[in-house]
Amino acid sequence: MILLFTDYGWQGAYVGQLKTAIYNVSRSAAVIDLQHDAPVFDSRASAYLLASLVDFIPADALILAVVDPGVGNAARRPLVMKADGRYYVGPDNGLFNVIARVAKSVEFWRIDWQPTGLTKTFHGRDLFAPVAAMLDQGDRPELTRLVVEDIGFADWSAELAEVIYVDNFGNVITGLKGLSVSTDMRIHLDEREVGFAETFSAVGEGEGFWHINANGLVEIAVNQGTAALAYNLKIGDPVYMYQP
Amino acid sequence: MILLFTDYGWQGAYVGQLKTAIYNVSRSAAVIDLQHDAPVFDSRASAYLLASLVDFIPADALILAVVDPGVGNAARRPLVMKADGRYYVGPDNGLFNVIARVAKSVEFWRIDWQPTGLTKTFHGRDLFAPVAAMLDQGDRPELTRLVVEDIGFADWSAELAEVIYVDNFGNVITGLKGLSVSTDMRIHLDEREVGFAETFSAVGEGEGFWHINANGLVEIAVNQGTAALAYNLKIGDPVYMYQP
Amino acid sequence: MILLFTDYGWQGAYVGQLKTAIYNVSRSAAVIDLQHDAPVFDSRASAYLLASLVDFIPADALILAVVDPGVGNAARRPLVMKADGRYYVGPDNGLFNVIARVAKSVEFWRIDWQPTGLTKTFHGRDLFAPVAAMLDQGDRPELTRLVVEDIGFADWSAELAEVIYVDNFGNVITGLKGLSVSTDMRIHLDEREVGFAETFSAVGEGEGFWHINANGLVEIAVNQGTAALAYNLKIGDPVYMYQP
Repeated sequence: MILLFTDYGWQGAYVGQLKTAIYNVSRSAAVIDLQHDAPVFDSRASAYLLASLVDFIPADALILAVVDPGVGNAARRPLVMKADGRYYVGPDNGLFNVIARVAKSVEFWRIDWQPTGLTKTFHGRDLFAPVAAMLDQGDRPELTRLVVEDIGFADWSAELAEVIYVDNFGNVITGLKGLSVSTDMRIHLDEREVGFAETFSAVGEGEGFWHINANGLVEIAVNQGTAALAYNLKIGDPVYMYQP
Repeated sequence: MILLFTDYGWQGAYVGQLKTAIYNVSRSAAVIDLQHDAPVFDSRASAYLLASLVDFIPADALILAVVDPGVGNAARRPLVMKADGRYYVGPDNGLFNVIARVAKSVEFWRIDWQPTGLTKTFHGRDLFAPVAAMLDQGDRPELTRLVVEDIGFADWSAELAEVIYVDNFGNVITGLKGLSVSTDMRIHLDEREVGFAETFSAVGEGEGFWHINANGLVEIAVNQGTAALAYNLKIGDPVYMYQP
Repeated sequence: MILLFTDYGWQGAYVGQLKTAIYNVSRSAAVIDLQHDAPVFDSRASAYLLASLVDFIPADALILAVVDPGVGNAARRPLVMKADGRYYVGPDNGLFNVIARVAKSVEFWRIDWQPTGLTKTFHGRDLFAPVAAMLDQGDRPELTRLVVEDIGFADWSAELAEVIYVDNFGNVITGLKGLSVSTDMRIHLDEREVGFAETFSAVGEGEGFWHINANGLVEIAVNQGTAALAYNLKIGDPVYMYQP
């Protein structure tokens, strides 16, 4: 099973061609669109978002992730990671670093395999998708084992006190884990602040609060409102959480 | 086969995680995205919209429907309905009431099965998706049969003289059935009104009309225009249809 | 394998019902969403866009394409095309003409098969999808062979010096092929013009350029900017490319 995580959006033929490239290699692949609106060109925010999703994914599912502002840049290596038994395929730009940081075991390979006719701008279709399909069906593309320390993920924190995503309801997802905070903590937002509530209905209409979302992250929300607008928050904004 | 009908939107990982939860139970499930922009948090409009879609669905397909503003509210029961031989899985908030109302035979069960780690906000992924996958592959989750009269669907009308959806072309779908009206009827819209036309090309450019859409519902449209803007209509607005 | 190319958008139940109609005929069909935001009601621009995508598609995959402003018009024939061994199913409105124009071998059939209950507005679901599913599984719906010359594709140019699509990053795709131009050519845009660059990073931030995109078409872009806004371009606008 291959799960797709990209910043391509649903418009255009980008996702469709990614899938076609998988099926060109493996007709029997099961492909799931996990998310296609990852923070655009933002591999750092995307890394924290992706890390929050992997706990709910079958252990034998492969993750094909493409958030790749450096596509076409010769310095950026195409990568395969194996973390706690699961394969990840994508660019070497930090996208897998948060998962690597918290994994019990991790290995990395540089992808040496190359298709004929690799384009400069669509490595997702031309390179990553075929490699993902090969690995998914048990084949082995040409890979070179990398020294784990060279990836640099050890410098990444396991959490990020920033906004990493705003969903279509305007809920503001942070890179902070619910397991690391306590429910008496508050989040400072400019002149205002919000406290914890278990669910939306626990606060009044239009009132802001933070809760632990279904993927274990601290999320700022407004009951029947739009937190991103109410608090003027966007991806990359810092989040100050404190014990009063 | 499992058909998904939700108000999650295509953004975020909501739909992706719903599917992942299905595949966690059943790798061979065939899953189709029927619609993911059902009227948000509006189980009433969604109920009439969903009812208009089921005639075109194979009899053995299961429908997993989640429009669930009450998620996290302990009073809201998770439900399995079997109507005219087809299973429906979702919240007990009226979402299936229109289908129940017109079905020849209908049964209801409360879902007693619970996953470990049920979150407060994502019952679609944690509860409804696994139950749908179990039923789809012939397994039986823990269920308790409910008295049909307790659901309260008998009080629902089979049709709704309101706007229940606006599509991406601005066409305005009502909860009225084409089979119940005659083509000499007119729809009163504020100071204006529209008459029937068989197709878009039967009226002049920019002219409004009503027709019976491909799912059998009365729909207000403008030839090469946007009916929702032209007549200032949104979900929930009343629709006055009369015989001149 | 069936690839879908439509202007339905992802909203509503249009795509979902198209797929359901395929599965009603063939449960084992593999269906891929190639693109659902083809230029709306614009079969000409869509024809050039679709033609740019087919090289990356497996030879045995069938293409079900619906961009059909004339649906409900009795004069518009439903069509099956076989070009270079691949089947295409859709309306006879030019949508397949660019592919036919450059194909080595091409055959056409009028679809005579009709479902019971063909609606006036949703031939994608009612007519084209079942026919595509039948052909995909090796069945033969009722078809009448057409004289190739009657289709009129010979009058279509293989390329189009116009904007044919704007993607979600605001990149402007033209109907000109990279193989037909040379990198010293420039594109005139109102008072301004842009030259060739291999990739985004080869020009300064905010600077415009043209490049050959991953599907072989000339594309106008702005590094870290939005070309469609910067140059005020939309589908159908002419593109003047010249040798200085």
